[in-house]
Amino acid sequence: MSNKQTYIHFTNVLQQLNCDIAFIQDPTTISLLTHYTTDPHERVLAMVVSANHTPLLFVPALEKNMAKAAEPTYTVVSYQDHENPWEILTSAIQQQFDLPTKWSVEKNFITLHTVENLKKENSKIQWTDDLTPIINDLRLRKDADAIQKLKDSGTYADKAVEIGIQSLTEGITELEVVAKIEYEMKKLGITSMSFDTMVLFGDHAADPHGVPGDRKLRKNEWVLFDLGTMHNGYASDMTRTIFFGEENAKDVRHQEIFNIVKTAHDLAIQSVKPGMKASEIDAIARDYITEKGYGEYFIHRLGHGIGQSCHEFPSIMEGNDMILEEGMCFSVEPGVYIAKDYGVRVEDCLVVTKDGCELFTHFPQEVTKN
Amino acid sequence: MSNKQTYIHFTNVLQQLNCDIAFIQDPTTISLLTHYTTDPHERVLAMVVSANHTPLLFVPALEKNMAKAAEPTYTVVSYQDHENPWEILTSAIQQQFDLPTKWSVEKNFITLHTVENLKKENSKIQWTDDLTPIINDLRLRKDADAIQKLKDSGTYADKAVEIGIQSLTEGITELEVVAKIEYEMKKLGITSMSFDTMVLFGDHAADPHGVPGDRKLRKNEWVLFDLGTMHNGYASDMTRTIFFGEENAKDVRHQEIFNIVKTAHDLAIQSVKPGMKASEIDAIARDYITEKGYGEYFIHRLGHGIGQSCHEFPSIMEGNDMILEEGMCFSVEPGVYIAKDYGVRVEDCLVVTKDGCELFTHFPQEVTKN
Repeated sequence: MSNKQTYIHFTNVLQQLNCDIAFIQDPTTISLLTHYTTDPHERVLAMVVSANHTPLLFVPALEKNMAKAAEPTYTVVSYQDHENPWEILTSAIQQQFDLPTKWSVEKNFITLHTVENLKKENSKIQWTDDLTPIINDLRLRKDADAIQKLKDSGTYADKAVEIGIQSLTEGITELEVVAKIEYEMKKLGITSMSFDTMVLFGDHAADPHGVPGDRKLRKNEWVLFDLGTMHNGYASDMTRTIFFGEENAKDVRHQEIFNIVKTAHDLAIQSVKPGMKASEIDAIARDYITEKGYGEYFIHRLGHGIGQSCHEFPSIMEGNDMILEEGMCFSVEPGVYIAKDYGVRVEDCLVVTKDGCELFTHFPQEVTKN
Repeated sequence: MSNKQTYIHFTNVLQQLNCDIAFIQDPTTISLLTHYTTDPHERVLAMVVSANHTPLLFVPALEKNMAKAAEPTYTVVSYQDHENPWEILTSAIQQQFDLPTKWSVEKNFITLHTVENLKKENSKIQWTDDLTPIINDLRLRKDADAIQKLKDSGTYADKAVEIGIQSLTEGITELEVVAKIEYEMKKLGITSMSFDTMVLFGDHAADPHGVPGDRKLRKNEWVLFDLGTMHNGYASDMTRTIFFGEENAKDVRHQEIFNIVKTAHDLAIQSVKPGMKASEIDAIARDYITEKGYGEYFIHRLGHGIGQSCHEFPSIMEGNDMILEEGMCFSVEPGVYIAKDYGVRVEDCLVVTKDGCELFTHFPQEVTKN
């Protein structure tokens, strides 16, 4: 859906709720519903929507022109850094929306600080419906246009892994590989990665949240790449764990664990189709790894949704019985992490299709680089 | 202060508050008080502190080893993705802290979602003191060690601007310059920039939150660099607006505006000393720019604090009557932005010293590159 279509759909949902206005603060939600994209840092930002009024954007003064250019038909109210934003904001809302008292908010975003400041200006506010699940739902099913953008972004992720593997030489550091990848991606027009690029050598990959550093690559080590790109507003995310060295120098047990993770990844992907539960997909990969004796080392969910952000819904995990539908997009990323020994993860993102799924990334999953 | 000293200081402050525990969720606060640094994305993370108990770290399962390694004497409780974190968290808190009911929280961080989930598990919780100003205060005055780290980080920012200017040639894009800077910085061991590097050509710089793109550099254009590095946990932040072309090709009016901004920057910096109000420093720069006729185009505060994060206190703006003290660190960054015409900003960060201030960045403020 275009931003405008999403906005219209959102206002239709709003009419079914018990609220006067939707009060939105998450910049990613605002960029979902409008053409205005911003990162206000610690400054106050808000969008206010109701089915029967012109929407209001409340922005810092230095963003006023950008907001107005992005949404010329909206009311844009701004404030200077030295002014009290809460007073200006509540007064603008009172005027434009006929003294609303029932406010729906994103409960996973609005802070106690904001709640208290708004209440100070207007003690009549009641927090009614939680917008978080509604907005998550808006993002949940991707249309053809969004799917194409996710595929395009995936193509860049494939390219990034390829560049990373090409750059591997004895003695190069993790950070130098990251630098090389991001440099080449920027030259291809990728303004930002979807998260901090992860390149980990050897047993460093056993830390699922490891941070690349000045560790130098040695011959016959495994290398884990976990990376993604932002392209046309859509994220990609993939992981490859490849071997740098001579094929016959591989530790047999490490290769065996790699095979288990790769098979778990393949089994899960082969099982995806509409009607399955998210939790079932997780179980297929997890049960296989457990059966092979490594269940205790697979310490995270199988996957997460992907779209305009890199972590959204559906969450592919035990306990999530959401039924998969066509157009849902998520990662499948089983991993095994044995501290101070070995870490492997294989990850692709996909879209659920009519009778199965289609991957966004296509780089080979098993690679040895000499 | 070391993390341990900061922690001890924090527990001393806690004893003066009307609370049983401090409940902390902001990862930057946790990394201020402990040796544990993390980005939990949407997963639940918490640290619980009281003066008389062992601290508790509550982390996702996949971070348990990292947390335990960082703080071996703490209680570390973890949860799997499919478990209810709120139940496990509140039960761990009840056990370890003798059924606390008065919770101090970071009101600018805790969300309504978290508030409601915690209340669901334990209806007796009362939110007492706001930790936000206390934690801001902990960060406010830097000691010699922190100041040295800020200077070191500033040295890298100087280097980054130098690399950026060296890379300028006709036809290069904004994004290519960003790529070049970040690539060279990574090779120097800088794992991350303190924010998205900004390189804007010509009138694109008139947008104070502009995003670098594929605009190509032409001869005789101004180029704005706003960038910073993270080094040893401390941020740098600087802005230079330089001229690419022949000295005699400069538009007289643009040069005049540049001079006004540069003079405002210098006047503000010359006036900094302990005992001044933050608002007075802002006024010195602002009054000068206003007097010269460009006040309406200086649409943001003069500066922001800097330390382990790039935007902290003190905020240098109208209305902030905080008295400056030795060890406070902040940016001075006047700017003038005339839409579709010209944008200029000159920024350095500094530390307040006994009788003035010292800058962290030293690259020349006025540069012409042929």
